[in-house]
Amino acid sequence: MNAPLIPNYLNGRWQTGSGEGTVLRDPVLGTDLVRVDSLGLDLPSGFQFARERGSAALQALTYGERAALLAQCQKVLLAHRDAYYEIALANSGTVKNDSAVDIDGAIFTLGQYARWGEALGGARALRDGEPVKLGKEPVFQSQHLRTPRPGLALFINAFNFPAWGLWEKAAPALLSGMAVVVKPATSTAWLTQRMVQDVVDAGILPPGALSVVCGGSAGLLDALLPFDVLSFTGSAETAAVIRSHTAVTRHAVRTNIEADSLNSAVLLNDAAPGTPAFDLLVREVVKEMTVKSGQKCTAIRRVFVPAPVFEAAAEAISAKLAKVSVGNPRNDSVRMGALVSREQWHNVQQGLKQLAGATTTLYDGRGQPLVDADSSVAACQQPVLLGARDADSAQTVHDVEVFGPVATLVAYRDIGHAHQLVQRGLGSLAASLYSDDSVLLAQSALALAPFHGRLHIVTPEVAEAHTGHGNVMPMSLHGGPGRAGGGEELGGLRALDFYHQRSAIQASTHVLQALGL
Amino acid sequence: MNAPLIPNYLNGRWQTGSGEGTVLRDPVLGTDLVRVDSLGLDLPSGFQFARERGSAALQALTYGERAALLAQCQKVLLAHRDAYYEIALANSGTVKNDSAVDIDGAIFTLGQYARWGEALGGARALRDGEPVKLGKEPVFQSQHLRTPRPGLALFINAFNFPAWGLWEKAAPALLSGMAVVVKPATSTAWLTQRMVQDVVDAGILPPGALSVVCGGSAGLLDALLPFDVLSFTGSAETAAVIRSHTAVTRHAVRTNIEADSLNSAVLLNDAAPGTPAFDLLVREVVKEMTVKSGQKCTAIRRVFVPAPVFEAAAEAISAKLAKVSVGNPRNDSVRMGALVSREQWHNVQQGLKQLAGATTTLYDGRGQPLVDADSSVAACQQPVLLGARDADSAQTVHDVEVFGPVATLVAYRDIGHAHQLVQRGLGSLAASLYSDDSVLLAQSALALAPFHGRLHIVTPEVAEAHTGHGNVMPMSLHGGPGRAGGGEELGGLRALDFYHQRSAIQASTHVLQALGL
Repeated sequence: MNAPLIPNYLNGRWQTGSGEGTVLRDPVLGTDLVRVDSLGLDLPSGFQFARERGSAALQALTYGERAALLAQCQKVLLAHRDAYYEIALANSGTVKNDSAVDIDGAIFTLGQYARWGEALGGARALRDGEPVKLGKEPVFQSQHLRTPRPGLALFINAFNFPAWGLWEKAAPALLSGMAVVVKPATSTAWLTQRMVQDVVDAGILPPGALSVVCGGSAGLLDALLPFDVLSFTGSAETAAVIRSHTAVTRHAVRTNIEADSLNSAVLLNDAAPGTPAFDLLVREVVKEMTVKSGQKCTAIRRVFVPAPVFEAAAEAISAKLAKVSVGNPRNDSVRMGALVSREQWHNVQQGLKQLAGATTTLYDGRGQPLVDADSSVAACQQPVLLGARDADSAQTVHDVEVFGPVATLVAYRDIGHAHQLVQRGLGSLAASLYSDDSVLLAQSALALAPFHGRLHIVTPEVAEAHTGHGNVMPMSLHGGPGRAGGGEELGGLRALDFYHQRSAIQASTHVLQALGL
Repeated sequence: MNAPLIPNYLNGRWQTGSGEGTVLRDPVLGTDLVRVDSLGLDLPSGFQFARERGSAALQALTYGERAALLAQCQKVLLAHRDAYYEIALANSGTVKNDSAVDIDGAIFTLGQYARWGEALGGARALRDGEPVKLGKEPVFQSQHLRTPRPGLALFINAFNFPAWGLWEKAAPALLSGMAVVVKPATSTAWLTQRMVQDVVDAGILPPGALSVVCGGSAGLLDALLPFDVLSFTGSAETAAVIRSHTAVTRHAVRTNIEADSLNSAVLLNDAAPGTPAFDLLVREVVKEMTVKSGQKCTAIRRVFVPAPVFEAAAEAISAKLAKVSVGNPRNDSVRMGALVSREQWHNVQQGLKQLAGATTTLYDGRGQPLVDADSSVAACQQPVLLGARDADSAQTVHDVEVFGPVATLVAYRDIGHAHQLVQRGLGSLAASLYSDDSVLLAQSALALAPFHGRLHIVTPEVAEAHTGHGNVMPMSLHGGPGRAGGGEELGGLRALDFYHQRSAIQASTHVLQALGL
């Protein structure tokens, strides 16, 4: 074991685990990079330190002061940006543009919360609505407010966003005054660990405000107490285990979960081949299939088009996919790097087999050679477009999420049928709609909204201005109902709600004034 | 078995269970009243009917139209009010004033939501904040909205509020367009069932919009699907079972839980014996201990006073408790009727034994004879005031909720100590503060807010106007963090959030305008 063991940061100090650790690998070259290990860490004492030192110190500050700390963190990340790109290249196997989604996405999101928090100024609690009188006389009123929760925020994160996954959660948590403990997914934990290290080394945050535990997750949930919160991103399988844990079932630890999602793109009836809306759908589908090799929870998995347009859409998407070069991201001609690991590569093959029974193959890039990469070693996966003409009988398409550059084109009869098919995903993070008809789009948006956390509507008017189906903007809610886990992240200052307790204060107007809200 | 079997309402028709059923009893006389049974009901089909007929029909209406239905329901309940008082007297053993808390509380809350809903008018989705631009140009924006969830709302309710417990949840659910299935606690299910029957007979709501299942809860959770919601009020024990159920862990059914709560009343330092604030605390503690025989989730269980005031407070509260006549609520001289059942009576004795080790007895009404009631049959319980001078070592006081006319007086050293002790309840529904100093009160309110869903602040100025520590006003949030279950109910239109999906719509300003929000 030559790969260096990188330390955890807990209890205000750097600590290595006492075990052999798990090796993190380069998914293109197959080489060892670093090891992580958390065996033997005293999690209960580390968590208590985070609450009593980290959260307490943060909550002694105002929102404005905490926002200033976020702005300083952002500066530190910007200063070390090149190192993060190197780690992403080595450990995630991503081309520069794909690393940017994670790294620059993290820095951008952190900056947004610094700005939004600055606007909250000198407050220490957030006003929630206006006072309402409780009786006939106005002397006794009810005023709602939100106060920071007196616990810590534990993040159990996914492998696909080691940078953004940390900061999109940590920014609102820290701004709310809650200390953060992040447990990154093991396979890409390095980047998360490095970012924490840089921020810790910069001495910006109070001791205990930011901790990182890399390696196994054993014992993490057992160390949670009633006022902590837990945010998990990952599989529905693990989500179910988390939800069944005593911390949640007995201590009512508040939990936010983002799990599987079979996101949709829908071409409306008016958008025939040759129209700008048709071209916009094709462009977006290809982009979503290939950015980060399709390893985005928000990526398009199901593409719904009117039946008469099926062939034309298949052709147009396939033609663009054929131009996507796959291989070693160190080669400038490569557009798409690797999946995160050989294990994920096997999962994708497995998923493709599951979908094979319900679909036909419209495009299969697997015949194309990899650029500068050994296909027996590299976790590189060429794009595959599947098709389901008879969508009603293709249930697997609505159930199985292949976490790679794979999507299924699905034919629909009329818009009601399209809505029904989308809903068979049983709740998704995002759906996008393509058309040039504002009224049709608004109708579909309202019909599909209850099944989604976000709807992304692409009209020719916003061809250049729209922010992308799968791009998670901090201004918009991220999370979806049902299969997607039922969570809510981001959405501007809405994200702060999760880290606050809402209370009603029933009192005289004099006392309410003395609250200073 | 002579007690008549009352039917369930499911699938748009009245259905009796196929078993022997469970007998509901008069807790004062011990006589049989009615039987309930749900054995053999086809819950999955009944639930599907509720979703496909009830919710669909409700969601075809606007908020204003649904509010009008609530107003009609309220009229029906008002017309049958006397019958409800008779059932409450027989089945809950409550005096008229205590029945009113449940019945008139229900009718008042329903009326409030009818009025609030009317103000929402012709909308079918709720705007959530203002649009925010996503890029540099204002052409592409993010607008959040809330749409009704396409499922049903299942309520598993507690025995202490068969009327209010139904309507405080059903009013916001129906206003949101979600069909309701209520499973009342068996011991007092009769009143819930009768209210549903009256509303169903009046033909106000669309078929499937309101169903009632009385008896066992087996199979209820198994019939839930991803877009349903589940609201539970009851013990932390049952809450843990519910949270571990597949419907929640796998289908991400949205769940609201209100469980145990060791609510506090705190007399601040400035309120010595003889001051109005001191008298207000005494009055409120006695009221909270005795209304509904202390069977309110919001009732005061822990009374914190400065150590020098301990004796005076004990004396003043005890003197008032000694005047409380307990017995058959049919006798006009009786101020406090029975607990809900003999089983609950045994639970209270058990709880008193648990607290005995950590407390002294300051007042014990159990020596007093019952009025017109046989103490070997009736579930009547006289008030008991316990005391803990050394609060730090009396952990049981902060852990064990005795659900009856029982409270513990606790001495504190200084206000920081008082806050610490209150927090040892690990999260409560409500706390009340008594003082004549607005600044001190505001400081304590902010310190205690993270641990409570509601703070009730009593100053001499609001002596007559304040609405009572334990009274749940629909304008204020009801629910608390941690041990209290982490739920949120009521709080005006905030209650609608639970029954809606929040989504971000990212689109051009033209499309956003076409949403008609």
